[in-house]
Amino acid sequence: MASRSDTRGKPIRCKAAICRKAGEPLIIEEVELDPPKAWEVRIKILCTTLCHSDVTIWKMNSGAVANKYPRIFGHEAVGVVESVGEHVEEVKERDLVLPVFLSECGECRDCKSPKSNICTKFSNGLIDYMPRDGSGRFRDMNGEAVYHFLCVSSFSEYTVVDLAHVVKISHDFPLDKACLLGCGVSTGLGAAWKVADVEEGSTVAIFGLGTVGLAVAVAAKQRGASKIIGIDLNDQKFEIGKGFGVTDFVNPSTCKDKSVSEVIKEMTDGGADYCFECIGLASLMADAFNSSRDGWGKTVILGVEMHGAPVALNPYELVRGKIVTGSLFGGIKPKSDIPLFANTYLDKKLDLDGFITHEVGFEDINKAFDYLLEGKSLRCIIRMNHH
Amino acid sequence: MASRSDTRGKPIRCKAAICRKAGEPLIIEEVELDPPKAWEVRIKILCTTLCHSDVTIWKMNSGAVANKYPRIFGHEAVGVVESVGEHVEEVKERDLVLPVFLSECGECRDCKSPKSNICTKFSNGLIDYMPRDGSGRFRDMNGEAVYHFLCVSSFSEYTVVDLAHVVKISHDFPLDKACLLGCGVSTGLGAAWKVADVEEGSTVAIFGLGTVGLAVAVAAKQRGASKIIGIDLNDQKFEIGKGFGVTDFVNPSTCKDKSVSEVIKEMTDGGADYCFECIGLASLMADAFNSSRDGWGKTVILGVEMHGAPVALNPYELVRGKIVTGSLFGGIKPKSDIPLFANTYLDKKLDLDGFITHEVGFEDINKAFDYLLEGKSLRCIIRMNHH
Ligand SMILES: [Zn+2]
Ligand SMILES: [Zn+2]
Ligand SMILES: [Zn+2]
Ligand SMILES: [Zn+2]
Repeated sequence: MASRSDTRGKPIRCKAAICRKAGEPLIIEEVELDPPKAWEVRIKILCTTLCHSDVTIWKMNSGAVANKYPRIFGHEAVGVVESVGEHVEEVKERDLVLPVFLSECGECRDCKSPKSNICTKFSNGLIDYMPRDGSGRFRDMNGEAVYHFLCVSSFSEYTVVDLAHVVKISHDFPLDKACLLGCGVSTGLGAAWKVADVEEGSTVAIFGLGTVGLAVAVAAKQRGASKIIGIDLNDQKFEIGKGFGVTDFVNPSTCKDKSVSEVIKEMTDGGADYCFECIGLASLMADAFNSSRDGWGKTVILGVEMHGAPVALNPYELVRGKIVTGSLFGGIKPKSDIPLFANTYLDKKLDLDGFITHEVGFEDINKAFDYLLEGKSLRCIIRMNHH
Repeated sequence: MASRSDTRGKPIRCKAAICRKAGEPLIIEEVELDPPKAWEVRIKILCTTLCHSDVTIWKMNSGAVANKYPRIFGHEAVGVVESVGEHVEEVKERDLVLPVFLSECGECRDCKSPKSNICTKFSNGLIDYMPRDGSGRFRDMNGEAVYHFLCVSSFSEYTVVDLAHVVKISHDFPLDKACLLGCGVSTGLGAAWKVADVEEGSTVAIFGLGTVGLAVAVAAKQRGASKIIGIDLNDQKFEIGKGFGVTDFVNPSTCKDKSVSEVIKEMTDGGADYCFECIGLASLMADAFNSSRDGWGKTVILGVEMHGAPVALNPYELVRGKIVTGSLFGGIKPKSDIPLFANTYLDKKLDLDGFITHEVGFEDINKAFDYLLEGKSLRCIIRMNHH
């Protein structure tokens, strides 16, 4: 293995898990990765995990994304800076960093406002290339360009990421936990702490007890919520949820002649103070809204609707002072908030252990897909085996 | 005319404008009005106005409300306390008061919370009777019971109102302006100041330039909004709107191949900071939402949807940090906020004069309906002619 000083400024050959066609298993191959250009960072990935958004895009076999192969997936990860491009001062070689899918440039109107996390520096919406110049950095052994994913592409021993997508965290942070903070868990924490601002004694209803929903539960418990209701079609999720702070459980399939929202209104004396939709289904978004309390009930939409179906809100419910708010990445500004979450963990005020249900070596990355597809895993840590 | 001491504790005979059938002109008739029971206040109405909600219910010729005749409409008004029932200490005879449609008991969980104005003391939803005991206080000259309206029924020389629906204001306040604060104008002010909390330099889009929408404009201007866009199908509303602070105008019928939201996004560099729907049409609510800015754009729904149609929100718009909030009565707590608005007027920081476009004597009350139906009036002051 080359030392840092040998690779700096040059292309790197490394192993990556390439997906060559939608829905097909990844193949570990050699790739060549360009050195970072100006404002870019080349990262040696140490741990990565699989998030639902990887799987959602990976499954899509029609539309524009279905043509963007070969591609390197992965967007929850932690690594160390291998080298940096021109103008990069914020991080340096050997820093521990998380590459993240959402940019924080610090300069645009959104980044400067405390109200927004929708950085508009790169408003091109590119998920297949580097955000700044719209080109790629990976090539396979035939010289064919390999698409990026969500500006991260962490299913590779090395990746190049724009500085706006890099979050520095303290060097002593446990790698597997750090990895978790890159997407799903932070989304749930941010939604509860920043978007909803759940306060002590309040009631919370969480629709969908996957990683994001359980992170909402953890955050709500940390704030002292008096009742944390989990709503899921899978009864096993209640036992799992208990470990994350869920106090009550509703399985919509066993509500009989009542609607979920009627059941939740009964459990909460009129409706939950905070409702979270963590799946991405318009019908569930409406259920969440209907389960929220008159006067101040706030529904936070975390899931990206799978089919683009509109969210239908009953206007007579809306007029009674209810609030609906969408959020991307739980409303967090990555560079500002992820280090705060990391500190909360280090202060032992946040338990992240339960989210890690599996661990595999990089060579077994397809098992992580199997676990997620079978509904068996929350997060499967994928460890890189750098020699 | 009897002196107060003669009427206290006894029924009063007075004139009221009774509606005997949905959609038919009101008829000035003699009615008998009971003295106030415990926790009730009998008010001598001095001025009243006609609000859209009166007309909406008056027009409905099917459903439950269509059977609630004879009825006394009217819910924007000012008057003096004629007498009070047992336990009433908050107001006394000769106090200047506004009867209002929304209760503020001060004791329920909602009244105690700064977040809600949906008082739950009387959760029976009665609009046809007194809220506390569900009975009526008016009878016509045949002894037939006459229905109340929205707990106010101000189209009468005297009315009886529950104390929770009574707001006391200072005795030197001009009567016609006081009257305005009873519903529509306060709804707009509250929506801009309390629900949206419009700040200096922000951009505002107002869908529907009736009294409520223009009150939003006045409030936004008072806060120093940099751009206040009025959206209305009636071009004349722009000239009118200018007097209330509207700086730009969009007529959706002349947007050609663009949608209203596209036009507003162009005018505001990506979307308005605050959008207000002041009509009550689901399609317009969606337009307002789509016109709001990513990241922090807040859409306040003020209109009660006329047909019960669901509000359809695009989930891909929602996820980018947008907020939708409904509000009743502009989120204001009547007893707490209306006196604050009145002080703002007295401090000359709020111009209410433009809202009064017409004035008629009580005997000409049907003209107020004509003016509103023809779209000619904002508020028509209806003056009682007590002898
Ligand atoms: Zn930015
Ligand atoms: Zn993710
Ligand atoms: Zn109350
Ligand atoms: Zn009204």
